[in-house]
Amino acid sequence: MLLEHIASPRDVKALDATALPQLCDEVRRAILENAAAVGGHLAPNLGVVELTVALHRVFDSPRDKIIFDVSHQSYAHKVLTGRAAAFTDPAHYGEVSGFSNPHESEHDFFSMGHTSTSISLACGLAKARDLAGERYNVVAVIGDGSLSGGLAFEGLDNAAVLNSGIVIVVNDNDQSIAENHGGIYGCLARLRTSGGTASNNIFRAMGFDYRYLEEGNDVDSLVEALEALRGIDHPVVLHVHTTKGAGYDPAERAPEVWHHVGSFDIESGRKHTLISGDVPEGTYADITGAHLLEAMKRDPRVVGVTAGMPYVMGFTQERRAQAGQQFVDVGIAEEHAVTMAAGMAAGGMKPYVAIYSTFLERSFDQMLVDVCRNSLPVTFLIDRAGLVGADGSTHQGVYDLSYLRLMPNMIVAAPRDVRDLKKLLSLSAEISEPMAIRYPKDGDDMGPGIQSQRDFRVGEWELLSSGGDVMIFAVGRMVQFAMQASIELMGKGLSAGVVDARFVKPMDEKMLVEQAKRVRLAVMVEENALAGGFGEGAIRVLEENGVATDVMALGVPDRFIGHGTIAEQLAECELDAYGIARRILARWKEREGRADA
Amino acid sequence: MLLEHIASPRDVKALDATALPQLCDEVRRAILENAAAVGGHLAPNLGVVELTVALHRVFDSPRDKIIFDVSHQSYAHKVLTGRAAAFTDPAHYGEVSGFSNPHESEHDFFSMGHTSTSISLACGLAKARDLAGERYNVVAVIGDGSLSGGLAFEGLDNAAVLNSGIVIVVNDNDQSIAENHGGIYGCLARLRTSGGTASNNIFRAMGFDYRYLEEGNDVDSLVEALEALRGIDHPVVLHVHTTKGAGYDPAERAPEVWHHVGSFDIESGRKHTLISGDVPEGTYADITGAHLLEAMKRDPRVVGVTAGMPYVMGFTQERRAQAGQQFVDVGIAEEHAVTMAAGMAAGGMKPYVAIYSTFLERSFDQMLVDVCRNSLPVTFLIDRAGLVGADGSTHQGVYDLSYLRLMPNMIVAAPRDVRDLKKLLSLSAEISEPMAIRYPKDGDDMGPGIQSQRDFRVGEWELLSSGGDVMIFAVGRMVQFAMQASIELMGKGLSAGVVDARFVKPMDEKMLVEQAKRVRLAVMVEENALAGGFGEGAIRVLEENGVATDVMALGVPDRFIGHGTIAEQLAECELDAYGIARRILARWKEREGRADA
Repeated sequence: MLLEHIASPRDVKALDATALPQLCDEVRRAILENAAAVGGHLAPNLGVVELTVALHRVFDSPRDKIIFDVSHQSYAHKVLTGRAAAFTDPAHYGEVSGFSNPHESEHDFFSMGHTSTSISLACGLAKARDLAGERYNVVAVIGDGSLSGGLAFEGLDNAAVLNSGIVIVVNDNDQSIAENHGGIYGCLARLRTSGGTASNNIFRAMGFDYRYLEEGNDVDSLVEALEALRGIDHPVVLHVHTTKGAGYDPAERAPEVWHHVGSFDIESGRKHTLISGDVPEGTYADITGAHLLEAMKRDPRVVGVTAGMPYVMGFTQERRAQAGQQFVDVGIAEEHAVTMAAGMAAGGMKPYVAIYSTFLERSFDQMLVDVCRNSLPVTFLIDRAGLVGADGSTHQGVYDLSYLRLMPNMIVAAPRDVRDLKKLLSLSAEISEPMAIRYPKDGDDMGPGIQSQRDFRVGEWELLSSGGDVMIFAVGRMVQFAMQASIELMGKGLSAGVVDARFVKPMDEKMLVEQAKRVRLAVMVEENALAGGFGEGAIRVLEENGVATDVMALGVPDRFIGHGTIAEQLAECELDAYGIARRILARWKEREGRADA
Repeated sequence: MLLEHIASPRDVKALDATALPQLCDEVRRAILENAAAVGGHLAPNLGVVELTVALHRVFDSPRDKIIFDVSHQSYAHKVLTGRAAAFTDPAHYGEVSGFSNPHESEHDFFSMGHTSTSISLACGLAKARDLAGERYNVVAVIGDGSLSGGLAFEGLDNAAVLNSGIVIVVNDNDQSIAENHGGIYGCLARLRTSGGTASNNIFRAMGFDYRYLEEGNDVDSLVEALEALRGIDHPVVLHVHTTKGAGYDPAERAPEVWHHVGSFDIESGRKHTLISGDVPEGTYADITGAHLLEAMKRDPRVVGVTAGMPYVMGFTQERRAQAGQQFVDVGIAEEHAVTMAAGMAAGGMKPYVAIYSTFLERSFDQMLVDVCRNSLPVTFLIDRAGLVGADGSTHQGVYDLSYLRLMPNMIVAAPRDVRDLKKLLSLSAEISEPMAIRYPKDGDDMGPGIQSQRDFRVGEWELLSSGGDVMIFAVGRMVQFAMQASIELMGKGLSAGVVDARFVKPMDEKMLVEQAKRVRLAVMVEENALAGGFGEGAIRVLEENGVATDVMALGVPDRFIGHGTIAEQLAECELDAYGIARRILARWKEREGRADA
């Protein structure tokens, strides 16, 4: 095993050149076995094994800076930079995160996870280098799928005029998470088929020196191509044609469904759990997809819009085919997805934009100015709201209630279970304002809650149980935990009721005030940052109404929550049933103490 | 006068073709005289007079949809669509806003004001048209300066593969607000000098049909070129070379300083008040520029970053020249500006990113993930925070306290006057976390406040005056109004003190709790949306600390505030001294009423 002797990139450079293919094989095998056991972003990582080995052969990390876009394809980089055990030794599986992380290694320069940032980060490093009078190499590695993001273009546009050395490796596997969408992909295809010589080259158009390498999975060719760029004094694009899923047949044949996988059997290619390309039945995403497809059939104005992730809205290939022109995938371009939806709504359509909570942050301004300022009937379907588990701090969906609540005209709702999701989706068809529906990853895996008895109107909450001492106002998934907490509290002699505060905006101010007045402590619980969230808003309403009841707000604290299971993260934030009960009890005792004093 | 007979685009079409140049002259004269009297975006509008006349000659608005990017260049469009009086008759000056507005005319399809949205909006309209089986034309008109925005690229990328008719007119005057920055401008320049024939055409690279017109200020040529595009069934880019400021010598010669002007004398070109290209002495921007330039001289790590608007940070051409490599203008590309700054900070620099509050919304995700997640020492200088006057609802800077406060690791400060701005700028040099300093448009035009006595630490507030009944905790410019309100209240027999809550994050929780406990009503005042703002956060802190004092939060209500003077907008929001005093008094009486009951 060569890998046993690779503790840092220095060891890659010390190898005989003839040993590099074997090193690549070992790295690929480690990634494959690790993913088969614990899952991960498989296909993107298999595709860049040779590129990563070549980068560390040619460049001198950490003095030279190599920035992997999104960094979901940095497993080989992790293997070569002192973290091989996390891939080769089952006892250490899971010890590294799935993304670049400066706390893990001096070879990781940024905590990353959102797309299309690498070129801008590289521009910043290059500028810092030049101002400091230093001379290291700066390399951004970006996949073709990430190129459609506006930030990548802004970065390219600026990198082209840096007047200094910067290397941008375009890792072109002709594949985004799902299909690629956009005019730039025609250009890349023409460059691939012409061996880089096609006219109207977008990179040359912007002023880049441009090189093309067809053999993107041949380590020797890569080393040669990269060596020519070491120490370069101007902006250059190296366009490399790689194969997504390279070296593992099932992934090469179906890269979309092998983009991000759970565990699987290597020999048979049989997956134990599916992640990408799959919409498990009964999840929020599946319910959404089924509902939307039905709505499309009934109403030709209904359009589904996604930014490169059709599964977010439960749109499997089959549902996409059925939806036809009523389904639009704009590729990784969250800003455009939202502003285009505003245009569609102004043109008489009823668009539904489905984006993960964390990625919808990219469209903050577009939601506020283009949709809400024009009060257009765009509905946002926000998946992975709340704590998301393994993807960790860059993917937590714990800000949307805050950033949506400040937008005039926006209705903000969170169903407590998939049944209420259906009701909210039905409701959305009837309203003509912007609306956001946020729901957690997966389905009702925490067990079913109490079924709501009837349909509800915008802004209407639901009293689930009464309590003499405490009333808990909970949002979304927190309703279930609040119910459990109330049982827990009963055992401690405290009578706590629960209200499902399913509309964070507008709030059911009447119910909020009435129910808070009846108790001695009103508790707001949300799976969102405390700052600017539901709790703060509800407390202000109580204060404006002169309600003297003590209040407290529970939510995600003001720090980034790292990777782990959702259950671990909920516990860390004291947002599981025990945490909620414990916090309420502590506050209650504090109250009693004050009352005694 | 032809203009007297132009009530709608139909009248433009009814004119004899030979009359079009005269119509253009009259429209230009109207725009010039109006701007000379009341100011406005002069140079961009002068450049598109012929283009606008030609568009309304050829296309059939409002059936055909013409979308002007940003819409600051839509004066000629307004003149031709029933709003001529607002430009020709001094009695009606100021009756229309400076941007596209559906409430003004059926020919305005969106309320706009932020850059680079037109192509995405046009894509949405085209998609809606196709789904509805209709056949109208959709035209986006976008300036070269707006093309560097990532959203414009996302829109182009998607428009290119629409498989349907869409016309994108690139209005190329070789000029952003200041200089253009980016590789795309080299491409545009090569296309201009080659009459559109240069190789490596970025639009053709993306798959567009492409046409070039050199005579962008010749109405007959424009009509001919546009007529060829009417009813087109595929995506096309018409690249038109116009002259910014066309037809008015001073503006042609110095389009940067004539981009946005106050009133001026047409004959002499002497300006009465300056707006763009000018940094009036003593304004927040001027103080910032002077301070930053000094800091750059002392510390080679200090870098100023702007997204196309150097004046935001007081960087006149002279200061830019002095700053040299330590000043970076990335062009209109707010996302890149922030992520590049993260890269610079990781590379050891101390970047200052200066962007208007409303445009910084574009960088929400980049601030959160790239800067705050990595806890990098990037300082944000946020001009035009609060109510901004004439630019109206799309430009109000009233959300930043909310969107910044939710970001872990971010320090959020607001100086009450320019003296405190200097202190905050000095303080920023010493800290290694992300920091945001927000300040209002213009300078201390509301009169000087009380001078703070000494330097302060991060999170430290200042007690300005004590009060027995009420304590007002005010942020930024509101401190002055709170002081005035306290005098007003004294006359009504109410004793109100004032605290300068200059750090919205972290808060001075000790002072907040102590001072709130001493009174019967604690009032939070901010020039920011109530939702998620300072007030809600402060109230939560008081509740967490068991403070029983009554509280209220004053801020911008949950609706969009339209154009007017800043004073009018403050009065509308009840955030002037009278409004603050009135609200406090009303609440006080309500309290007394409850106490009596």
